[in-house]
Amino acid sequence: MSRPPTLQFWFDPASTYAYLSAMRIEEEAARHGVSVIWCPFLLGPIFRAQGWETSPFNVYPAKGRYMVRDIERLAASRGLPPFRLPDPFPANSVRAARTALMAAERGLAPDFMCRLFTAAFAEGRDIALPETLRDCLVAAGAPNPDEILAAIGETSTKERLRLETERAATLGIFGAPTFITPDGELFWGDDRLSAALEWACET
Amino acid sequence: MSRPPTLQFWFDPASTYAYLSAMRIEEEAARHGVSVIWCPFLLGPIFRAQGWETSPFNVYPAKGRYMVRDIERLAASRGLPPFRLPDPFPANSVRAARTALMAAERGLAPDFMCRLFTAAFAEGRDIALPETLRDCLVAAGAPNPDEILAAIGETSTKERLRLETERAATLGIFGAPTFITPDGELFWGDDRLSAALEWACET
Repeated sequence: MSRPPTLQFWFDPASTYAYLSAMRIEEEAARHGVSVIWCPFLLGPIFRAQGWETSPFNVYPAKGRYMVRDIERLAASRGLPPFRLPDPFPANSVRAARTALMAAERGLAPDFMCRLFTAAFAEGRDIALPETLRDCLVAAGAPNPDEILAAIGETSTKERLRLETERAATLGIFGAPTFITPDGELFWGDDRLSAALEWACET
Repeated sequence: MSRPPTLQFWFDPASTYAYLSAMRIEEEAARHGVSVIWCPFLLGPIFRAQGWETSPFNVYPAKGRYMVRDIERLAASRGLPPFRLPDPFPANSVRAARTALMAAERGLAPDFMCRLFTAAFAEGRDIALPETLRDCLVAAGAPNPDEILAAIGETSTKERLRLETERAATLGIFGAPTFITPDGELFWGDDRLSAALEWACET
C-alpha cells in the first residue's frame, strides 16, 4: 500500500499569513489526498539574520499597512472573522511555538493551531500568555495540558525548537508560511498553497 | 452609456513579477470587462526610501533564489518561454520606463511592454540599450520609433516619469506589480491580479 504524499507546512505562530493557511490547509490537503506535516519554527532568528530586528511589516510601514488590508480582504472572502492585528505586533511566539511542537507530536497541531491563530488574529488575545496556550490546548482536546505547559520551559524543548529553526534556515526558508514538498520544492506564502499541494501530488 | 471599469497596472520594466502580469493582464481584464491603464514608474527611488540600494532580491539572497525558482515554475505553468534572469539584475530601467510612458499615451503600451518584458526575461536582452527599445517599438507597430527615442532624453519626459514615481509613492506603492481600483483599493503582486479585477468589477 503506497503512502499518501506529504507537504511540510512551516509556520511561526505570530505570522499573519500562516494564520490564513492554517485555517484551510487540512481541508485543501484532504481534497488533494495530501497529508500535512505541521512544522513550527521561529521567524525571529531568520529575520535577524536578514538584518531585521522586528517583522518586515514593522520595518517597512507601507508594506505593513498593506498586509493588514490584504488580510482583512482575504479573511472576509474566506468567511473568517474580522481580522485583528495583535498589539504588540508581532506577538512573542516563543512559548507558542514550543507548545505547537509538542502538540504536533501528539497529533493535536491542526486543532491547537487553528484555535491559537484565531485567538491571536480574531480575538485579540496574547499568545505569549500561558492561559491563552492552556485554553487552546484544552479546546483542542489535549488530555494533559499542564504537562505540556510545564514542558515548554525545559531545556530539551527549547533545544528542539532551536534546532527546528536552524533546519528551516538550512532549507532556505526566509518567511512564513512556507510549504516544502517531499522532493524539496519550496513554496512561500499563503497564495502558493494550491501550487504546493499540486506539486506534492505529482511527485 | 456607462464606461467599463478600469484598473491601474503599476509596473517597473525591470520587475520580474510585473513581467508575469503584463503577459496576461489584457486577456484577463477583457474577460472581466475591465479596461487596463498601464502606469510605468521606477522602483529604484521607492526602494531607496525603504533603505535598499538595489532590489530586495539582491539584498536578501534567499528571497532572490526563491524568486527565480518561483518565476521559472509560473512561467512553465503559463506556457511562457523559460525564464532568464537578466545580468545585471535589476536592469537599469530608466529609459525603458520613459519609453513606456510615451508608448502608453499612444496606446502602444500592452504590445510594447510585452515585447520588452519578453526581451528582458526570456531573450536575455538588456532593456537599458536603445536598440532593444527601438526593436520593441518597431515590433509593437510604433509609426515613429526614432521620435520616441529622441524624446526620452528630454527634460519634460524625465520630469513626467519622476512625477509618476512620486505619485506611486503617494498612493502607497512599495513594490511591483501593483494594481489600483477606481475606489483606491491597492493590490500588490502578480498573485493578486484576479482579486484586483474582481474588485474593479464590483465598484
